[in-house]
Amino acid sequence: MAASSTSGKFRIALVQLLVGSEKAANLSKARALVQKAKEKGAELIVLPECFNSPYGTQHFASYAETIPGGPSTQALEEMAKETKSYIVGGSIPELDSDRYYNSSTVFSPSGETIAKHRKMFDIDVPGGIKFTESDVLSGGNRISSFDMSFCKVGLGICYDVRFAELGQVLTRRGCKLLLYPGAFNMTTGPMHWELLLRARALDNQVFVAGVSPARDDKASYVAWGHSTVVDPWGKVIATTEEAEDIVFADIDLGEVEKVRTAIPIGRQRRADLYEVHDRT
Amino acid sequence: MAASSTSGKFRIALVQLLVGSEKAANLSKARALVQKAKEKGAELIVLPECFNSPYGTQHFASYAETIPGGPSTQALEEMAKETKSYIVGGSIPELDSDRYYNSSTVFSPSGETIAKHRKMFDIDVPGGIKFTESDVLSGGNRISSFDMSFCKVGLGICYDVRFAELGQVLTRRGCKLLLYPGAFNMTTGPMHWELLLRARALDNQVFVAGVSPARDDKASYVAWGHSTVVDPWGKVIATTEEAEDIVFADIDLGEVEKVRTAIPIGRQRRADLYEVHDRT
Repeated sequence: MAASSTSGKFRIALVQLLVGSEKAANLSKARALVQKAKEKGAELIVLPECFNSPYGTQHFASYAETIPGGPSTQALEEMAKETKSYIVGGSIPELDSDRYYNSSTVFSPSGETIAKHRKMFDIDVPGGIKFTESDVLSGGNRISSFDMSFCKVGLGICYDVRFAELGQVLTRRGCKLLLYPGAFNMTTGPMHWELLLRARALDNQVFVAGVSPARDDKASYVAWGHSTVVDPWGKVIATTEEAEDIVFADIDLGEVEKVRTAIPIGRQRRADLYEVHDRT
Repeated sequence: MAASSTSGKFRIALVQLLVGSEKAANLSKARALVQKAKEKGAELIVLPECFNSPYGTQHFASYAETIPGGPSTQALEEMAKETKSYIVGGSIPELDSDRYYNSSTVFSPSGETIAKHRKMFDIDVPGGIKFTESDVLSGGNRISSFDMSFCKVGLGICYDVRFAELGQVLTRRGCKLLLYPGAFNMTTGPMHWELLLRARALDNQVFVAGVSPARDDKASYVAWGHSTVVDPWGKVIATTEEAEDIVFADIDLGEVEKVRTAIPIGRQRRADLYEVHDRT
């Protein structure tokens, strides 16, 4: 780790988990796959959106937990300590007072919680799958980033990826990697999943990873899968299909500086004409 | 035209001109292709970047003209009047006092100049083709949009497309179509041309068209070609390969409202957390 930290290189693993209806089984399988990712050298391991629960407004209340205090957060902390890796807990339905959120927690290799992000938005595509999270969930009010030993990382959940401004603000904060656990569906997945990840990467000249649950054709909500890592040139450097899988990529942060030197849009931006403001 | 104007539908044509070294021949061929586009029903006809001159810093001074006053602007005005179409004059090297610019002029169907955009930025990709326009050219200081009878249109030239903020500001102004005449090269073309056009379209939920010169393998600067129209869902609806060609697309502005209703990121943006400011 120390060597990686100074070299600006590290291995990321995206755990494309097949999520079932039993929470304990989801947690136990997640833990096994996280172990496997660690055995193959991953130092940052990312779980998908709703990794402990089926995805859907009808499920959120029964699967929700407080953060901390619930079994899912506890399991994530243990995974981090066991593997001595950074663990991004995709997301889980969170209960806080009388409100529900779609929330992602991040743990350091020593098991400390270093970030919690609440998904900010939801989606409803007419003609596709109608799915209005905000019927049940509240939106988050924070732009979330955290520091790893390697670099600063930005975190959004699923629909958050559609907001270019969020990626821009995270990049202005110094993030060199943006993570989006997300369960796009069979309408929005083929249309937009890869395009959005590549757009965020190229426009901000950062690494981007999108982490989906595996596809379950029998579920009420069918996820697209295709967990993907994109480099700061906008190129897909690792991906998969719809089945349960772990996607590995070796991140070389030197690529960030390389593309920014080659195509210096960061310093060429015309702040006299336009500017993206971070109001937080 | 009147019917089109109220129906929110119109035909766009992208003239992927094979540009040679003789200015008069370039103008005359452009005129013939514009006529052809009109015969096939185009009401907005867009020429590529540097349509009157080979592309390269060594050529700009000898091909440059004042705007208005030069033969290229004169030819564009005549094309507009002849075809009674909107003509976007890709770009030409412009001389203004002792400075050079890469400039695009837009003419209404009655031959009035309704916009002039000066390219704001340049590019140098190490390991690829070194090409620093700013050695010779000055950058523009305006964000450019114009009104057609159908909708408001935003205009950038080539490298301008890399600046997400520019597209965002043009969209905030009400543009439903963004035009980027641009000569990407054989390095940046395959990597980024289509991705950037699709990213601008999807993130802003607008139509986007990129218009390249045809490829001339014997030229000092070899353009990628692949002139492309993208709809507000981020889908390529018309494109071509590298040869001289005219790309047609039927634009239905109703698609803009459709995608914005389906995926309402415009009204869901969190101005309390971030905001893109138009400072002009």
